[in-house]
Amino acid sequence: MLKLNGIFPPLPTSFHKNEKLACGKMQDNIRKLSQYDLAGFLVLGSNGELVNLSENERQKVYSLARDVVAKDKILLIGTGGQTTRETISNNTVAAISGADAVLVLNPFYYKGLMSKKALVEHYWAVADVSKVPVIIYNMPASTGLDMDAETIVRISAHQNIIGVKDSGGNIVKMGDIRRMAEPEFQILAGSGGFLLPALSVGAVGGILALANIAPNQCLSIYNDFFKGDIEKARKMQLDMIPVNTAITSRWGIPALKRAMDYLGYYGGSARKPIQALSPETEKELIKIIDKHL
Amino acid sequence: MLKLNGIFPPLPTSFHKNEKLACGKMQDNIRKLSQYDLAGFLVLGSNGELVNLSENERQKVYSLARDVVAKDKILLIGTGGQTTRETISNNTVAAISGADAVLVLNPFYYKGLMSKKALVEHYWAVADVSKVPVIIYNMPASTGLDMDAETIVRISAHQNIIGVKDSGGNIVKMGDIRRMAEPEFQILAGSGGFLLPALSVGAVGGILALANIAPNQCLSIYNDFFKGDIEKARKMQLDMIPVNTAITSRWGIPALKRAMDYLGYYGGSARKPIQALSPETEKELIKIIDKHL
Amino acid sequence: MLKLNGIFPPLPTSFHKNEKLACGKMQDNIRKLSQYDLAGFLVLGSNGELVNLSENERQKVYSLARDVVAKDKILLIGTGGQTTRETISNNTVAAISGADAVLVLNPFYYKGLMSKKALVEHYWAVADVSKVPVIIYNMPASTGLDMDAETIVRISAHQNIIGVKDSGGNIVKMGDIRRMAEPEFQILAGSGGFLLPALSVGAVGGILALANIAPNQCLSIYNDFFKGDIEKARKMQLDMIPVNTAITSRWGIPALKRAMDYLGYYGGSARKPIQALSPETEKELIKIIDKHL
Amino acid sequence: MLKLNGIFPPLPTSFHKNEKLACGKMQDNIRKLSQYDLAGFLVLGSNGELVNLSENERQKVYSLARDVVAKDKILLIGTGGQTTRETISNNTVAAISGADAVLVLNPFYYKGLMSKKALVEHYWAVADVSKVPVIIYNMPASTGLDMDAETIVRISAHQNIIGVKDSGGNIVKMGDIRRMAEPEFQILAGSGGFLLPALSVGAVGGILALANIAPNQCLSIYNDFFKGDIEKARKMQLDMIPVNTAITSRWGIPALKRAMDYLGYYGGSARKPIQALSPETEKELIKIIDKHL
Repeated sequence: MLKLNGIFPPLPTSFHKNEKLACGKMQDNIRKLSQYDLAGFLVLGSNGELVNLSENERQKVYSLARDVVAKDKILLIGTGGQTTRETISNNTVAAISGADAVLVLNPFYYKGLMSKKALVEHYWAVADVSKVPVIIYNMPASTGLDMDAETIVRISAHQNIIGVKDSGGNIVKMGDIRRMAEPEFQILAGSGGFLLPALSVGAVGGILALANIAPNQCLSIYNDFFKGDIEKARKMQLDMIPVNTAITSRWGIPALKRAMDYLGYYGGSARKPIQALSPETEKELIKIIDKHL
Repeated sequence: MLKLNGIFPPLPTSFHKNEKLACGKMQDNIRKLSQYDLAGFLVLGSNGELVNLSENERQKVYSLARDVVAKDKILLIGTGGQTTRETISNNTVAAISGADAVLVLNPFYYKGLMSKKALVEHYWAVADVSKVPVIIYNMPASTGLDMDAETIVRISAHQNIIGVKDSGGNIVKMGDIRRMAEPEFQILAGSGGFLLPALSVGAVGGILALANIAPNQCLSIYNDFFKGDIEKARKMQLDMIPVNTAITSRWGIPALKRAMDYLGYYGGSARKPIQALSPETEKELIKIIDKHL
Repeated sequence: MLKLNGIFPPLPTSFHKNEKLACGKMQDNIRKLSQYDLAGFLVLGSNGELVNLSENERQKVYSLARDVVAKDKILLIGTGGQTTRETISNNTVAAISGADAVLVLNPFYYKGLMSKKALVEHYWAVADVSKVPVIIYNMPASTGLDMDAETIVRISAHQNIIGVKDSGGNIVKMGDIRRMAEPEFQILAGSGGFLLPALSVGAVGGILALANIAPNQCLSIYNDFFKGDIEKARKMQLDMIPVNTAITSRWGIPALKRAMDYLGYYGGSARKPIQALSPETEKELIKIIDKHL
Repeated sequence: MLKLNGIFPPLPTSFHKNEKLACGKMQDNIRKLSQYDLAGFLVLGSNGELVNLSENERQKVYSLARDVVAKDKILLIGTGGQTTRETISNNTVAAISGADAVLVLNPFYYKGLMSKKALVEHYWAVADVSKVPVIIYNMPASTGLDMDAETIVRISAHQNIIGVKDSGGNIVKMGDIRRMAEPEFQILAGSGGFLLPALSVGAVGGILALANIAPNQCLSIYNDFFKGDIEKARKMQLDMIPVNTAITSRWGIPALKRAMDYLGYYGGSARKPIQALSPETEKELIKIIDKHL
């Protein structure tokens, strides 16, 4: 089974000023990040603006990533549509394009209709035909639908579903998934703000926006935890909270991209209507980076 | 300016059992509903499973609707993507396909980034280039983002933006929009549960799932209100609440479609993972319909 | 049965600068407001800082109110504790002190335990022994618990429970209560922001913070509605929204009290930790009052 | 400074069948729990039905607790009213009655008015005159008001405020408090569901309903964590989640009390309108206890 242990950056998708894909820039980012001991990369997660791209563009991102991600690194591709049929079709393309696994966001527009039964049937239908392993993606801040532990555990019973990225931050839920799911089912922290507590309840790693700009620090938390040096892991974890908050819940993708620009990667803009940071926010962001990274 | 006074059914999109578009069935529904004094039709709103269709399929729905909607009826087409560019592109196709106006859902996946500024710029950029008038679509139950009165009023200042469909049901907000927007800006109730109170604070009509199965009753509320017979309008409004709740917040699209089947229209299924009603729910639904329609 | 038709101001409780009760000041307010054609008064609702007073103080407020509220006006007294026994005890004192009816807030601290069964049993046990009729008080903005239509209707089946004040603003719920409850069960709008739409679905009046500072305007909406002049009622309703929002959801009790001071009543301060308005807010409030009252 | 390291059970208040205080029974519980290596006891927290007791009854609970809690154990008393004056008065009585520290719930009824400024001034005014140290109590599930990290850290700057019990379970917030507050400020987990992750980000202990029925298990998690045996601590933590959920968010106080009865303590009933468990729930609860304790 594909081992997801370790740290994955969910790569932002790079655009030129005219909002066209900047494929080379994105590849440069991957190459630069490849010098760190990361487990692999995710393209087209929430930070990758999955929902902001056309099907054609998504395939271009798959290709550009596959071209530069080393064979011994894991390439995760984010998929997931509102219907089962669209999700299956996306996964097929992703698998053909070289994904080692797909990170599948749940349907959410018809929240009231996404019963446990609906979600289980959806993920199982998707996993039945997926050529690569499936990872569940729970992202309540964007979807407005927080799948509970029982639902995720039920979904996890399918042999082609190997893990979950939970970005909700409900640490009891993560513990509860760990308790109820099979031991080989893999939990990934979905945010750098709670990597250490997630590891403490049994997560095997994380897909962390933070890893795009602070890969070494994320790796330190991870490694120190498994070495048993909780004190050191905690010190780094706490130090990373303001940076992580800045580039996620507080200011989001524009802040992540601005930080990347500032730190020698390519950031650029997100697609409209996502706005650029105001000059004041930018200044505040840089101050946080200078202090903590 | 395009007058939106009156009642519009937001047509569900018809599928065959294999989930393929059932274009003829949908046209039959439109023909049957055309015998009522409705102001027009909406295709590809939330009830039309906008998010469950591919671009190609959407265009087919535009065409089939344009073919059978009478010239003196208004054809509204639901659009709206997560980016400004995608929304503009959708609107262009909708306008070419014969939409009299487009009902534009706001971007919502990156909720935290959808500031008032972002939303105003988005709608204005969209309206700037739209060949047909734009109607704002606020649907917090699905999007998880409830645009407030001030934002909607700011957006409404664009001359190509002629109205709003508000499905949130916050009646004070509707009043506040009415108070602050230009008199010619048109408010449409987004649900049959609050048509009468919406009219009482100045709405000019409604786009109501309920109008697919109870067009006459919706028209009665509307007409009695404007005739000044509040008592009669209220009696019908209250009687419609359980039916409306059943086909919207309680059981949603599958209940709407089942009700249509039961009442001589074509309903069929929604696309997976949306589940069919359980037999018990179905029985309860039929009981409600038999009692109130 | 006690008729609740009409408009009731929920009197703020008057304090001196040292936070002691200012009984005379509160009586002056009642006398001044008595010149309007109000149906009666509520003391010790949410605007009356029920939860901020000791038992002794509450009794003083009952007495001072009873002394000056005319016999042909209805005196409502707000009660309601976290336990059934405390609520019963409060009601007993309120009845002895001359309440014509009690407005009983539901227990809410243990939200998760307030099942429909718990709430029905509570209100029935309370109504069984209450010497005066009971009015249900639903105030989700403060309690965090929004009793649904079915629960309220179930509670309403007790013969000593004569009405509900709903401050939540869910207009469909109000309609649903009207539909399902016995015709003699009386619904009161709980906020001046939705008086007209509440009347449109069958409310018989309102208990409105706004009536403390704009009694005539509230009465106009009420009277014009029942005269059938919806247009005029709407104009006033819309005009009142910004004032009402200012003294309720936006700035709350301190704004209500400041407005009363400004308009020739006694306002004073609320008890700490409730803060006085900032000078900027005060200025903005006065501007709103000057424009709309 | 008072050291809060360790595990505290928040004692439920014992009642006879007629809802009168069962002082002796509560003392028996304390005596039985005293055989474990607990840091102390809390009376009149949320599990102690603080809001369900009169002032007189509260003082009786203080006394009965002081009489049997050993001098080398810490006695925490829960207080906190809606006003600053009431809170101060409660604290004075609690201090006289022998509290080693007071756990002060924030005012919350007027949520919209509880700005950071209001909350800081409140806690500081309270701490200024408190004869014993103050611990902040954040309990959003009951109050509907979740104080954020910045607010709690600002409050913590007062020298007589020594810690916080956070029951919200937002693990990033706990980390953020740890990062920003002075090192001597003490964080206590507010629920047994997240004791281990809370310790991982720097909590020094917990006030845990679970400690009333599983003191040894809570102590194991605590001790194994500080011994560095994370694996063992995690095993126990995960095993405790279903028990903890059962007696807190799922079925609450009645389940906690039923579990105590089952395990040889005195449980009894909560005050009405809190309902007893249904027979089915009771059976399910016992099954969970039998499996995990």
